Amino acid sequence: MTGTLYGVGLGPGDPDLMTRRAARLIEGAEVVAYPALAGGDSLARAIAADLIPVGVEELRIELPMSPDRAPAQAAYDAGARRIAECLERGCDVVCLCEGDPFFYGSFMYLFARLRSRFAVEVVPGVTSLTACAARAAMPLVARNEVMTVLPGPLSDAALRDHLGRADTLAVMKVGRHLPRLRALLAAEGLLEAATYIERATLGAERVLSLADAPDDAPYFSMILIAKGADPWL
Amino acid sequence: MTGTLYGVGLGPGDPDLMTRRAARLIEGAEVVAYPALAGGDSLARAIAADLIPVGVEELRIELPMSPDRAPAQAAYDAGARRIAECLERGCDVVCLCEGDPFFYGSFMYLFARLRSRFAVEVVPGVTSLTACAARAAMPLVARNEVMTVLPGPLSDAALRDHLGRADTLAVMKVGRHLPRLRALLAAEGLLEAATYIERATLGAERVLSLADAPDDAPYFSMILIAKGADPWL
Ligand SMILES: C[S@@+](CC[C@H](N)C(=O)[O-])C[C@H]1O[C@@H](n2cnc3c(N)ncnc32)[C@H](O)[C@@H]1O
Ligand SMILES: C[S@@+](CC[C@H](N)C(=O)[O-])C[C@H]1O[C@@H](n2cnc3c(N)ncnc32)[C@H](O)[C@@H]1O
Repeated sequence: MTGTLYGVGLGPGDPDLMTRRAARLIEGAEVVAYPALAGGDSLARAIAADLIPVGVEELRIELPMSPDRAPAQAAYDAGARRIAECLERGCDVVCLCEGDPFFYGSFMYLFARLRSRFAVEVVPGVTSLTACAARAAMPLVARNEVMTVLPGPLSDAALRDHLGRADTLAVMKVGRHLPRLRALLAAEGLLEAATYIERATLGAERVLSLADAPDDAPYFSMILIAKGADPWL
Repeated sequence: MTGTLYGVGLGPGDPDLMTRRAARLIEGAEVVAYPALAGGDSLARAIAADLIPVGVEELRIELPMSPDRAPAQAAYDAGARRIAECLERGCDVVCLCEGDPFFYGSFMYLFARLRSRFAVEVVPGVTSLTACAARAAMPLVARNEVMTVLPGPLSDAALRDHLGRADTLAVMKVGRHLPRLRALLAAEGLLEAATYIERATLGAERVLSLADAPDDAPYFSMILIAKGADPWL
């Protein structure tokens, strides 16, 4: 009997926003796996830290900083191989994922490599999207409203094509793109409707109007735009 | 001292997909409030049932079936008044919300009515969106992909405007709109990429290709379309 791979969403950062199922899987884990940016900390590992049993086998999957595709693919190939070895000797593997595994999560790359050979269960988690909305006190969508989620690294032209169409917009992966995104949103008349949220539900959380946001935004930041013609009454 | 209003996301249905914070707030509640469709059951109440302490005061907020705005507004006005009475005498109120409170959740209407007068904390929850993706084994978005969330009751023209633009589409509130949505997606060449998910994480869950989905879909159903040119490798 081979083991089961669990892709476990941990929520946006506050360990209390982990689901009860995620907590139980971690507490009972034999092997935990998690991605970490080369040499750096793993936010997923940090969120789960208090629940990981002593003596558990840990598979740290180092991802290269480089934006090139080949090195990342090689890292996922190697990570998937190590996970497969555990599954083949009958151990379950709990893969820790910040937020939700299937919402811009690196677990998707491991899933693609392992799903045909092993049993996989994905445990959904609270995304940074709704966590940022909660912390900014910004309702996202109601009734027949439309929401589009956009990655900040997209080109201005690609972003612009969506900005006028949806009632609510979320821009993920802001980081160093912030000055460009702010200029674009200002040009489209959306600056006043835009809120910047940094490290939501974590210790150093910040919620600011986008106009007041820092130029050097960290990776864990997002912009939410609710056009909100409707006062929700 | 007035009480605090907690808008607590409960996740998509399986009580194990509730966050630890949600569970703790319910276990310690003095007053719980929840919406229920006129005369019917409340899914939010059902998800939380095992955690609601005996003897707690329950505020059931009956929402009319009618699609008209005025009766719904009157129901939220009345519900907000009853919640305000509890908060004014110093009790905290835990408002139970299916999924996430700010993602097409009725809590937004109570929030709009009470936020200026009382302390409100929103506890984000797992949305039906990522829960459906997990159950259908469908990764939603990676890298620089764009996702748009659409309510099924929108007109064909409004829907069509979005279908070609995003890499991933989620259609919520499917229900009786299913035959029309299926015809529209077929006409746009998206039928094969479309999966239908009904009552995700609940007992009677169903995951089908949209082509095989029933014409009379229930309210708790969704269509996910991942164009997925990229095999995620
Ligand atoms: C690779 S994606 C991972 C998303 C994650 N899987 C989720 O479900 O939220 C990383 C991006 O998510 C957003 N993000 C994640 N955690 C965040 C937090 N605590 N506060 C603000 N943004 C966050 C940022 O936009 C960041 O660039
Ligand atoms: C009023 S919205 C509430 C959404 C909820 N607040 C959330 O965060 O998921 C109701 C719609 O959500 C979707 N939905 C909610 N729970 C679901 C489930 N368990 N399975 C499939 N779809 C669900 C359906 O599209 C339904 O029509």
